Parts: sequence; structure tokens; C-alpha cells
Amino acid sequence: MNKLTVIKVGGKIVEDAQTLKQLLGDFSNVEGAKVLVHGGGRSATKIATSLGIESQMIGGRRITDEDMLRVVTMVYGGLVNKNIIANLQAMGINALGLTGADMNVMRSHKRPPVKVSAQVAGTAEDAIVDFGFVGDVDQCDGRMLSQLIAEGVVPVMAPLTHDGEGHLLNTNADTIAAETAKGLAPYFEVTLVYCFEKAGVLRDENDDNSVISHIDANDFKQLVAEGIIQGGMIPKIENALSACQAGVKRVIITRADQIGKESGTTITL
Amino acid sequence: MNKLTVIKVGGKIVEDAQTLKQLLGDFSNVEGAKVLVHGGGRSATKIATSLGIESQMIGGRRITDEDMLRVVTMVYGGLVNKNIIANLQAMGINALGLTGADMNVMRSHKRPPVKVSAQVAGTAEDAIVDFGFVGDVDQCDGRMLSQLIAEGVVPVMAPLTHDGEGHLLNTNADTIAAETAKGLAPYFEVTLVYCFEKAGVLRDENDDNSVISHIDANDFKQLVAEGIIQGGMIPKIENALSACQAGVKRVIITRADQIGKESGTTITL
Repeated sequence: MNKLTVIKVGGKIVEDAQTLKQLLGDFSNVEGAKVLVHGGGRSATKIATSLGIESQMIGGRRITDEDMLRVVTMVYGGLVNKNIIANLQAMGINALGLTGADMNVMRSHKRPPVKVSAQVAGTAEDAIVDFGFVGDVDQCDGRMLSQLIAEGVVPVMAPLTHDGEGHLLNTNADTIAAETAKGLAPYFEVTLVYCFEKAGVLRDENDDNSVISHIDANDFKQLVAEGIIQGGMIPKIENALSACQAGVKRVIITRADQIGKESGTTITL
Repeated sequence: MNKLTVIKVGGKIVEDAQTLKQLLGDFSNVEGAKVLVHGGGRSATKIATSLGIESQMIGGRRITDEDMLRVVTMVYGGLVNKNIIANLQAMGINALGLTGADMNVMRSHKRPPVKVSAQVAGTAEDAIVDFGFVGDVDQCDGRMLSQLIAEGVVPVMAPLTHDGEGHLLNTNADTIAAETAKGLAPYFEVTLVYCFEKAGVLRDENDDNSVISHIDANDFKQLVAEGIIQGGMIPKIENALSACQAGVKRVIITRADQIGKESGTTITL
């Protein structure tokens, strides 16, 4: 089976022309078949603000109303995605920008209103929150993607999906990356790489040299029990393990400038 | 040879949700292989204004400075293109949105500064005008497009190209349509359809029932000599004839709501 790497890079790196160019250079040097998944980050918020659109946030998560959906469609699907494509083409990479709607690559449904705890919502009681035009992914068409990849195309996925009824939906880029990796698992030996602000999963969060090089399902249980892995890192690794259960060979959490190098934390079943 | 239709639709139709839906419905009913090319129109100007960016126009043509390039990348490549894709997918059309940068489908070069007459420029003397980040097309990769089309994909082209050096360029949608049609001519019997605000080329511009149903190169010379075809229609038909010379079977100028019907003006060699 041929190897394929899905690399997810967050908004922070994508927003800055300098770090983006560095990232794309490193990405272009990754050997074998590959897919890039990008977030959008604060560029959307900035442009929304300039347009007089307020970003409503609940518990750190954005409410995507109709106006905000227009902005993320412009910024993620247009500005960010197409600039990455033009830059990769200049590096000799035959990149193709995709939202989930393009070739029906990733179908989702609008997230139903969810219960949010009072603490998270910042309200007196638990609240039912409608996050708006946000998509929860139903399926990724790995067959279509694998055909393109076989022809030398490098897909670059924006964090947008569609519901098949004419609506685009704002979708978490980490989820897009995981679903893409799972969708491609029947066709390739897939490594899923999450670019992270730290060098990997740390044994001591204040020591960048304490990267845990390998975590499997058993290690994970133990590290959580010992309190070494906690907070937001728990769902991150749970998602990584669930991607491995769905056929992804390994998930790597590493710093963006370490792409393609043997570093970071590797997660396997 | 299989038949293929390239349909170019302007900004005015694309801007209005109602006319767009009608157009996409008609487009989805066009038989055989097809490609949609869309303009962007004034939605970019509107958003630019909201962002405090002034659209500088000379002789009715926009200067695309760096800020305006960002806006057209967002609006044409993101907002307009991706909404069309989501709507076509809902109609069962396997649409794929493309700028010229995607899969290197359309390469262009930045237009060098050009001499503009004093009359057009609105200046005392003839002026040298730099239209900014505007692309003149060098080549269209018809082979890649034809492969996608063979797999049932319907390309939807935004009016943006790239120079192969990392820069996107704002590009006239009529030109994109003509270059796409020419690029596909070795693989299909291509009909290129331009949606126009009138029912076709009129013998009497005040009479919508005076559509000239067919014009060939000889008719054209005569109609120009007689003063029946004049003004902006002359370069339009010259471009149509030049597309035919490059292998396009026929060019049809018709009203958007007449797509797929046997009406309008057909231009052949």
C-alpha cells in the first residue's frame, strides 16, 4: 500500500505570510502522496469586524450565523485556500483547493442545538445553544480523492462542508483532517499529522524537551490516570485513537516547523 | 466526438439569489458534458466598499490593486463560486469549483501597463495605465479538465487565474470562457454560450424580436459594413469567431433564461 500523509495546519500559521511560506515549503518536501487541511483562524473574525459583523462566541466557540457563514466562505474557501494553491503551484505542487461541496467530497449535517453547561455558556443555568451553520461530518468520499491523488493532484481542504441541500457549513478543521484521513485509509497507509503550537504531547507542560515520543491506547489510559495527560489534550488523543480505529495507521502531533522530521508524539492503537 | 457546452454567466445573474437559482436549474438540465464560467460583478465592489477599499476605475475597467485582489479572491473564488457549487450539488450535479491556480488549469501573466486614449482615461492626454493584478491568459490545460469531465465532474470556473509564481490574477470571465472552450476543443465538440442581457445579436437594437439567428465570418463583415453590428458587439463577435478559428464548433449569444433552448444568435466560421 502506498503511503499518504494528511497534514492539518491551524489558522495561526496560515494567517502570517512568513510562517505560511515556511510551512508550504516544508509541506512541498514531504515525500509521497499528501493532503493539506487548513484552518482559517482569526482572519475571518478580522474581516467580519471590518464588515461590521459581530462574532458571537459561546464557550470559546463561534456562532456561525448567516452573515458569518458568508464571511468564512469568502475567507476560508477563497482568500486562504486560493492563496495556498497559488503558492504551492509556484513550488511545483499540483494543488487543488476543495471545500466539502466540491465533488461532494465531504457531506455533513447542520449541528442541532446542543446543551451547554452554565459554566461554559457563562450563564446562570445550563443553556441550549444553536451554533448556527456548523456542520458535523457524515461522510468523506475517499474514492474520489484517491483517484485525484493517483493522478498527482494534491488536495488542499478548506474547513467548509455542505449538507447536500445547497447549504455550506462551517466545519472544524481538525475534524476535516480526521475524516479525510479515515476516508483515504482504504486506499493508502495514512499518517495524519496535526500541527500544534508545542513540540508534541509533553510529560511536563513547562518543558519542551519532555515530548512523549509514542502513545498507544494503553499508555493513554495510564497517562490520564497519572494526570500527565489532562484538559484539552484528552479529547485530542481520543480523536486520534478513534481515527486509528477507523484505519488510519498513525497520528502525529508535532510543531509546524517539524513537519517531515522524525519528531513529535506518534499515536497508534 | 462527444458534445460539450461551456456556459458563461455574468455577475448580474449571479448576484441575485432568485435569478441564480433559475440559471443553475436551467444549467443542470443542459444535456451532455458541461462547464460553467461565472463572473463576479458588483458583489466584489460592494464588499470592497464595506471594507473601506475604493474601487479605482479607468474607462469602465477596474484597477486591481493588492487590496482589491484580496477582495475578488474572497468573493469570486470563495463566496460566489462555493455557493454555486453547493447549489449544483443539491441539484445532483457533481460540480467542482476551480480558479486557474487549481490543478494549474489556467496560467496567465500580469498585464503590462497599457496606453489608454485620453478620451477613455478621462485625462488631458493619452495615459499609460497599470491595471494592476489583472491576468492575460497564456494557456488552459484542457487535458486535465477533459479527464475530470470524463469522470462526470462539472467544472465551475471563477474569474481568477495565476502566473505560476504564486500570484493570483483577476481575469475577465468572457476570456476564461473562451480559453476554456478552446482548451477543450481537441477533446469535445464544443459549444460556447455567452449569456447576454438581450435575446441575441439584434438587427434593430430596440426590437427584441429582431434577433439575427446565425452569423458567419462573411455575414459579420457585411453586417459591420452596413452598420447593423457596431460598438461593443464588434469585439464580442470578433472574439467568438477567433474561438471558432481555434476549434470551437459554435458560439451562441443568448439571454440567460434561454439556455438550452434553440434561440439566440449562433456564430460559426
